[in-house]
Amino acid sequence: MDVNSAHRSVSLLRSLDGVMPQWSERLESRPALDFVHYCLRGVGQIVFMNNPVTGLLILVGMWVFSPWLGFAAVLGVVASTASALILGLDRVAVRAGLYGFNGALVGAGLATFLEPPWSGRELVYIVVVAAFSTMLMATLGAMLLPRLKVPPLTLPFNFATLAFLLAAFAVAHGDVGPLVGPQSPTVVGPEIDTSLRAAEGGSAVGVVEGVVNAIVRGISQLFLADSVVASLIILAGMFVCSRIATAFAVLGSALGVATGLLLGADGYKVYHGFWGYNSYVSAVAIGGVFFVLTWRSALFAAACAVVTALLFATISTVFSPWGLPALTLPFCFGTLAFLIMKELTPRFQEVPIEEVTTPEEHRRLLGRGEAEFGGRDAVGEQRE
Amino acid sequence: MDVNSAHRSVSLLRSLDGVMPQWSERLESRPALDFVHYCLRGVGQIVFMNNPVTGLLILVGMWVFSPWLGFAAVLGVVASTASALILGLDRVAVRAGLYGFNGALVGAGLATFLEPPWSGRELVYIVVVAAFSTMLMATLGAMLLPRLKVPPLTLPFNFATLAFLLAAFAVAHGDVGPLVGPQSPTVVGPEIDTSLRAAEGGSAVGVVEGVVNAIVRGISQLFLADSVVASLIILAGMFVCSRIATAFAVLGSALGVATGLLLGADGYKVYHGFWGYNSYVSAVAIGGVFFVLTWRSALFAAACAVVTALLFATISTVFSPWGLPALTLPFCFGTLAFLIMKELTPRFQEVPIEEVTTPEEHRRLLGRGEAEFGGRDAVGEQRE
Amino acid sequence: MDVNSAHRSVSLLRSLDGVMPQWSERLESRPALDFVHYCLRGVGQIVFMNNPVTGLLILVGMWVFSPWLGFAAVLGVVASTASALILGLDRVAVRAGLYGFNGALVGAGLATFLEPPWSGRELVYIVVVAAFSTMLMATLGAMLLPRLKVPPLTLPFNFATLAFLLAAFAVAHGDVGPLVGPQSPTVVGPEIDTSLRAAEGGSAVGVVEGVVNAIVRGISQLFLADSVVASLIILAGMFVCSRIATAFAVLGSALGVATGLLLGADGYKVYHGFWGYNSYVSAVAIGGVFFVLTWRSALFAAACAVVTALLFATISTVFSPWGLPALTLPFCFGTLAFLIMKELTPRFQEVPIEEVTTPEEHRRLLGRGEAEFGGRDAVGEQRE
Repeated sequence: MDVNSAHRSVSLLRSLDGVMPQWSERLESRPALDFVHYCLRGVGQIVFMNNPVTGLLILVGMWVFSPWLGFAAVLGVVASTASALILGLDRVAVRAGLYGFNGALVGAGLATFLEPPWSGRELVYIVVVAAFSTMLMATLGAMLLPRLKVPPLTLPFNFATLAFLLAAFAVAHGDVGPLVGPQSPTVVGPEIDTSLRAAEGGSAVGVVEGVVNAIVRGISQLFLADSVVASLIILAGMFVCSRIATAFAVLGSALGVATGLLLGADGYKVYHGFWGYNSYVSAVAIGGVFFVLTWRSALFAAACAVVTALLFATISTVFSPWGLPALTLPFCFGTLAFLIMKELTPRFQEVPIEEVTTPEEHRRLLGRGEAEFGGRDAVGEQRE
Repeated sequence: MDVNSAHRSVSLLRSLDGVMPQWSERLESRPALDFVHYCLRGVGQIVFMNNPVTGLLILVGMWVFSPWLGFAAVLGVVASTASALILGLDRVAVRAGLYGFNGALVGAGLATFLEPPWSGRELVYIVVVAAFSTMLMATLGAMLLPRLKVPPLTLPFNFATLAFLLAAFAVAHGDVGPLVGPQSPTVVGPEIDTSLRAAEGGSAVGVVEGVVNAIVRGISQLFLADSVVASLIILAGMFVCSRIATAFAVLGSALGVATGLLLGADGYKVYHGFWGYNSYVSAVAIGGVFFVLTWRSALFAAACAVVTALLFATISTVFSPWGLPALTLPFCFGTLAFLIMKELTPRFQEVPIEEVTTPEEHRRLLGRGEAEFGGRDAVGEQRE
Repeated sequence: MDVNSAHRSVSLLRSLDGVMPQWSERLESRPALDFVHYCLRGVGQIVFMNNPVTGLLILVGMWVFSPWLGFAAVLGVVASTASALILGLDRVAVRAGLYGFNGALVGAGLATFLEPPWSGRELVYIVVVAAFSTMLMATLGAMLLPRLKVPPLTLPFNFATLAFLLAAFAVAHGDVGPLVGPQSPTVVGPEIDTSLRAAEGGSAVGVVEGVVNAIVRGISQLFLADSVVASLIILAGMFVCSRIATAFAVLGSALGVATGLLLGADGYKVYHGFWGYNSYVSAVAIGGVFFVLTWRSALFAAACAVVTALLFATISTVFSPWGLPALTLPFCFGTLAFLIMKELTPRFQEVPIEEVTTPEEHRRLLGRGEAEFGGRDAVGEQRE
C-alpha cells in the first residue's frame, strides 16, 4: 500500500465521522441517490445520529434479527420521508432525516404488533400510518419548537402507532397480534419473579450473563429487535458517528437495567432489554446531544435515565387495560421533563436545536467560545 | 306575481346566503330578537355555518327525530350563550355564535346519555354543563388561538360532557342511561359482524341501501339524531349557507363509511352513521373553511376524513373501560392534527381564523389577491 | 407588662401577618436557618400562604394526625427544596417556598399510599420522587408561565406521585398499600349509600354533625390527614397569614360538600372531607389570590368550587381501573379552567403572578390604583 492509497483510506474513514456534511453536498444534485441517503439518515436519527452509515448499520441489525422487521422499517422511512416531500415541508429538515425516523419506527412497530408478516394489508397500514406520523411531526413541531425550543422526539411514532393499534381492536381486519394482550391492572408485588432468565418460565441465568444480556439487548430492543448481534451492529453504527453517544447508550441502558433490578422488576423483561431501551436514548439525548457534555450534564443524563426507567413501568401499567406496549413514550416524557426546563437553570449549556450535530462537535464549538453558538451565552459553563 | 314581489322574493332568497351580515346589522338594536338570532347562529356553527337559517333547520331536524333532543339543544345553546354574556366575553364572537355551538351539543349529548327525558334534574345538569363549556371555550381559546392560530373546535363540548358523565358514575343522582356501558377492551377481530344492518341482531340489508343510509345518517348522527329525514333537513340548512360545505359534508361522510367498510367495522354502527359523523366535519373544516378550497386542499380534506374515521375507532377503544361515547373527539384531534402544521407548508392557503366566513367567500377573496387576507401571503397558491 | 414589652408583643404579632417580608430579610445572611425558613414557607404554599408560621402549623396538624405523615412531609419539602438549590433554580422563587410545596405533598402522598411506614425504602422513594417534582415544577413552569401566565399549581405533585404509584404496580418492591384498589368502572347509581357516616359500614350520624365533620375534615384531608383537630390547627395557621383566605377555605369546603350531598355522593366519603379538600383550594385561588377579591370574583370562586367538586368525581371514575386516588388533580384542572381565560374578560381584576402576596394585600394595592400592579389595567373593576 503506497502513501497515496493509505492517505485515501484514512480520508475515507475520516469522512464517515460525525454528520458527514460532504456526503450531503455531493449527493444534492442526484435526487434518487440523495433520497436513499436521507432515508438512511432518518434511520440514524432514531438515536440522534444524523449519519447515513449509522442508519445503514441499524437496518442491517434489524434485518439480521428479522428480514420482515428490517423491510418494514425501510418501507416506513420511505413512506414518511416521501410524505414530507409531497407536503412541501422544510427541505433542510427532510435531508437531515428528521421526517424519517418516526416512519421507520412505525414500520418496525406495526411489523411487530400486527400479524401475519409480509401481508399486503400490513404494507398498506405501514404506509398510511408512517405518512400520518409525518403529519404529526409537523404538527407537534409547530407546537413545541417555536416556544419551548424542544423537538417532538419520537412522539409522532408513539401517537400514530398507538392510535392505529387501538383502532385495530374494533375492526375485523385489524390484524392485532398476540403481543397485544389486554388485562386488568393489578398490584402484583413480591410475587413477581425477579430472577434474570431468557425464557418466560425458564430457569435463572448467572448474574453476569443476565446483566450483560439485559444491557446489550436494550440497544436493539429500541428498534423492536431482541438480539445481541443486532445490538452490536447498531452500536458499531453509532460509533461511526459519535463515540460519546455510544458510551452514553451503553451507560443509559445499564442505568435502566440497574433501576429495574433495584425495584424488583420481572427478570424476563429485564433480561430482554425492556428496562434499558428507553433509558439509553434519554441518556444520549441529555448527555451530549441537547446539552453540551460536562460532568454536570453527565450526571443529569444519568438521573434522566433512571426517571425514564421508572416511566417505563408507569406507562406499562397505564396501558395494561388495553395491553398496549409502552413503545418509546417513557423516553419522550422523561427527556422532555428534563429538557423543557433548560432555560431556567444556568447549570447546563444547552445546544440550540438548529445547531445540533454530534456531542463531540458541540464540545468543540463550546471550546471556541460564544460566537459559535449563534451568539448565545455559550460559555456560561466555562466562566463559572 | 308582479315584478316587484318577484324582485323581493329573489332578494330575500339572496339574503339567506353565506353568513348573512345584513341580519346581524338589522337586529343589533333589538336585544331580545338578537339573542335568538345569535343562538341560532350558534347551532349552525356546529358545522361552521355562521348562519341563523342553518341553525334553525338543524334544530328542526333534531326536533323531528326527538322533541326532547331538540329542546335540550335549545336549552344548551341558550345557557352557554347567556353565560358568555354574563362573563363579558368578546361580543363579536358571541354574536357569531361561537359561544353557542358547544352548549347546543352539551344539551344534545346529555339528553342522549342521561335519562329519563324531560326530568327537572337533567335540565339543571344541561344548564350547568353548558355554562361550563363556555368557560372551557374561553380557556381553550386563550391556549390555542394566540399562538397556534387554531380554534378549540368542539373540544369544550367533549371535555365538559365527558367530565360530567364520568362524575355521574359515582353519585346516586347521576342519571346515567343504558347507552353508557363500561366493558373491558378486547380485540374482537374477524368475528365482528360486518354486514350492514338496521338492527343490532337483524339481517343484512342491500349494499346500496346500507351505504346510502350510512352516509346520510352520519349527517344527523353528529347532532345525536339517527334519522334520514333529519339528515336531509340539516343538509338543506347547510346548503343555504354554503354549497361547497354541503358537498364536503356528504363526501366526508362517504369517506368515513368507506374507511369503516374497508377495515371491517361493525355493520350496525356503519349503517347508523357512526363512521361518518366525525369524518364529515373534518372534511368541511379542511376542505374550504380553514384552508381555501383548491384541488390540493380537497385531497388534504379527504385524507383528514380517513384519519378521523380511524380515530373514531381509536377513541371508542380507549373509552371502552368506562363505556363512554367518542362524541366528536375524533373530529377535534383529526382536524387539529391537519391544521396546526399549516404554517410549515406552502401547499395550502390558510384562512386567518378571524376572517373565516364561508368556503365560497374564501375563494372569492383569494381571487382578489393579497390585500384581502389581512396582508398575509394570500396568493401563495396562485403564484406557484 | 410595661408599655415597651406590650409594644413588642403587638409588634411581634403584627410581624406574623401576611407574607412576613421582615423574616426573609433578617434570615438572608444565615443560610441554615434560612433553609428551614423557606422550607416552612413551602409547606404554607400548599394553600398559597407564603408564610413560615402557616407552614409550621400545617406540619403540626399533620404530625398530630400521624407522626409518619408529618415526617414524610418534612422529608419531601427538604428534598424538593434542596433539589431546586442544586439545580440552580431562581433563588427568589426558592425562598418563597415555590419549590417546596409539591415535595411536601409528595412526601405526604407516598406516606399514605405506600407501606409499611418508616421503612428505609420509602424514605428513598420520597426523596427521589420529591426531587423529580422539582424538575416537573421547573418544566411545567416553563410551559405555563411565560405564555398563559398561570402557575403549575400542584400538578408536579400529582404527576410525580401518580407516575411513581403506577410504576410501583409492576415491581416487587413497589410497596403499594391497600388504599390503592384497582376495580372496573361501574355506574352504581341509586344504590349508593348517601347517609353521612363515620365508618364505611356504620350507621348514619345527625345531619349537623355530619356536615360539620365533612366541611372541617376537608381542610386537613388536602394534607392527607383526616382529623378535626388537625383541620383546626391548619385553619389557625392560614388565619395568621390571611383572614380572607381562611374564610374562602371554609366556604369552598362547604360548597364541595353541598355539591356532593346534592348529587348523592357516598356519605362515608363526604363525611371524611373528600368532597371538600379540592374545592376549598380552588375557592382560595380564585377568590382573592389570583383575582382581586370583589363580589364578582367571590361568585366566580364559588362556581369554581362547585366545578372542582364535580371534577373530583370525574377523576375518581377515570382512575378506578388502577384504583388510584384523585389527589389534587380536580383542584388543578378546575382552577386552571377558571384562570387561563382571565385576559378574555373585563369582569375580574387579575393579580400578576409575580405580584401575588395575600388577598388582603391585593385589595390594598388595587385601592391605590393603577401604578401598583406593574402598570397594568389595575383599576378596570373600579371604573365600571
